[in-house]
Amino acid sequence: MLTSTVIRLRARGSGLLPRAMGEFGHAAFLAIVRQVAPDLSQALHDAGARLPYSVSPLYGGRLTGRGVQVQPDRTYWMRFTILDPGLYAVFSRYFADSSAPDVAITLGGVPFAVEELTSSAKLDPWAGYTTFAKLASSAACEPVVALQFWSLTAFSLGHGPGAAARYGILPDPVLVFDSLLRRWNRFADAPLADPNEWRQWLAEHVVVSAHRIRSESWQFRQHPQVGFVGDCTYQVVGGSAAQVRQLNALADFAFYAGVGMKTAMGMGQCRRVGRSASV
Amino acid sequence: MLTSTVIRLRARGSGLLPRAMGEFGHAAFLAIVRQVAPDLSQALHDAGARLPYSVSPLYGGRLTGRGVQVQPDRTYWMRFTILDPGLYAVFSRYFADSSAPDVAITLGGVPFAVEELTSSAKLDPWAGYTTFAKLASSAACEPVVALQFWSLTAFSLGHGPGAAARYGILPDPVLVFDSLLRRWNRFADAPLADPNEWRQWLAEHVVVSAHRIRSESWQFRQHPQVGFVGDCTYQVVGGSAAQVRQLNALADFAFYAGVGMKTAMGMGQCRRVGRSASV
Repeated sequence: MLTSTVIRLRARGSGLLPRAMGEFGHAAFLAIVRQVAPDLSQALHDAGARLPYSVSPLYGGRLTGRGVQVQPDRTYWMRFTILDPGLYAVFSRYFADSSAPDVAITLGGVPFAVEELTSSAKLDPWAGYTTFAKLASSAACEPVVALQFWSLTAFSLGHGPGAAARYGILPDPVLVFDSLLRRWNRFADAPLADPNEWRQWLAEHVVVSAHRIRSESWQFRQHPQVGFVGDCTYQVVGGSAAQVRQLNALADFAFYAGVGMKTAMGMGQCRRVGRSASV
Repeated sequence: MLTSTVIRLRARGSGLLPRAMGEFGHAAFLAIVRQVAPDLSQALHDAGARLPYSVSPLYGGRLTGRGVQVQPDRTYWMRFTILDPGLYAVFSRYFADSSAPDVAITLGGVPFAVEELTSSAKLDPWAGYTTFAKLASSAACEPVVALQFWSLTAFSLGHGPGAAARYGILPDPVLVFDSLLRRWNRFADAPLADPNEWRQWLAEHVVVSAHRIRSESWQFRQHPQVGFVGDCTYQVVGGSAAQVRQLNALADFAFYAGVGMKTAMGMGQCRRVGRSASV
């Protein structure tokens, strides 16, 4: 089960939260899991960089140059996506066991009451649920695929020879759809494609056909992080129907998986959009 | 001698010229050369895709959805850059031999009088002249290099297996600085670097650190062409001083060479800008 859960939050205090809210969202998420399932919490902690969930920034606040201004009694929202059924069971039990007025989380020192929580796409366009099998079987054979990179997105390119960390901040087809394939293969029962063959196919057959993007920098607590936001349309040039469908499945999967690095820290929030939105 | 010549033009008629003005600028440029040096004209015609000059679109007109609206007695401008000293001699002789009021060119059926023609950077920021030797010797050792892609820019990626033409429309460091090196090596007395080593170095040591870009499409007479415009900042991660200086020389060279494909048709107009302009 892949789920995207939107949480509507009412602020019970005020504060200026940094734009890289995912850091606090991540902490809040881990606090919830720790409370109801300490063992799972430890397992998550040990899982390293490839986490089976993503956490969005806090949306709905007024964005200033210094961060997100939160005011009492205003409503905000964030979302968690979960790629692991066991983890989703823990997460939903926490909210099911609590009577609504008592559920609260703290983000960067500011308390919030949870007003609503939904995984239904009918109730919120950023919510939803599906399965890997359904994503694969219902994937379209559409040669034009548009993605909206909604929060800061970047790819770790490792370290250059004797040099500092390098990041990819362009929506390169190979980087984007390789990131998605690796996440799919890690969490699904069966791999969707062979990673090396997939990278080769992307390089030869998938081009960017339209975009409108800009870089941004988020100040995390310890360091700044550069990335990009915006819209990008990909087009398959040649390629078999099976591969085009794999590309479509991964584009749909982006809604749950996020794209690139630090998807548990607010980065890489992404969703598929219609053709016209990205040109 | 590398020259960038800005030509101020006063319209003697009206018309709606297509946005891909370079097609007309190219025709006007060839008409000038044909008039004063028929042999050179034939040589240019035979030179194929790698032409020793670039031609900008027409600037200064009101841009509508259908093209550039030209009105009588309004002033417009375009620029030619020339990478070959013999060609520049021909070009400048044409204007020197003519008394100013008589010099005229026709762009897409609309007649224009040439009011001013300059290669002095003091008179116009898009004008200038230099040499390959000066570019190489005066290149800075600046690890941060920002480029402004001023007109539609794209890279030909060749044809996929059994597929249509593919274009690169992201300012990928390898594509941008490989395009510049190939043009340098073609027109300079001595190559600046080995192409294969240079591509390898770019892939390992140069990343995009900031950008604000969007794709656009130009309607050429025969076909539409996709590309991008905007600002992009490159950062060297590691790398020797000699290579950083080569990168700086190529960034300066972009002003004369243009970047990517169809630089004789208005595409790929590019110049180096200060750091702050591109973030």
